[in-house]
Amino acid sequence: MKLAPGQVADRLSQVTGWELSQGAITAVFQFKDFAEAMQFVNRAADVAEALDHHPDMLIRYNSVQLTVFTHSEGGLTEKDFELAARVNQLR
Amino acid sequence: MKLAPGQVADRLSQVTGWELSQGAITAVFQFKDFAEAMQFVNRAADVAEALDHHPDMLIRYNSVQLTVFTHSEGGLTEKDFELAARVNQLR
Repeated sequence: MKLAPGQVADRLSQVTGWELSQGAITAVFQFKDFAEAMQFVNRAADVAEALDHHPDMLIRYNSVQLTVFTHSEGGLTEKDFELAARVNQLR
Repeated sequence: MKLAPGQVADRLSQVTGWELSQGAITAVFQFKDFAEAMQFVNRAADVAEALDHHPDMLIRYNSVQLTVFTHSEGGLTEKDFELAARVNQLR
């Protein structure tokens, strides 16, 4: 179920490093090098498969930008923030 | 060394599926699902490390967009097209 704006603000305050962007939530993760960035991407992919919820992932050498949105609901849901929280734990 | 426009056109004609976009070259690869897309991303990452030349990689569920550019030369070089050709062989 799509979250109301107040709920989004509440959930967002609980996931460090994530911000709203064009209705989705997004975060950039920085690493030492490309190999370390790829390790993170693979761990994030495992989380995505486990939750059956898949962020867009943009790899730029040693940085990885994740963007999450619930397409089926046309907005942000608990699942988006669950994914954000689980991915934050990978750092 | 940065390629001249005529050389870029020539090299581009030799890498199926790649096109010019804002001075870089880019291609989108489609897969059955996210797991297959991730397998491709990991193989493309191995090519990138082997060539020491790293494309931007955008994963969107079952699609992967690669964008290549030689930042140190401020343009396209033989290495960009070598990476494109090697990645095309992964399909």
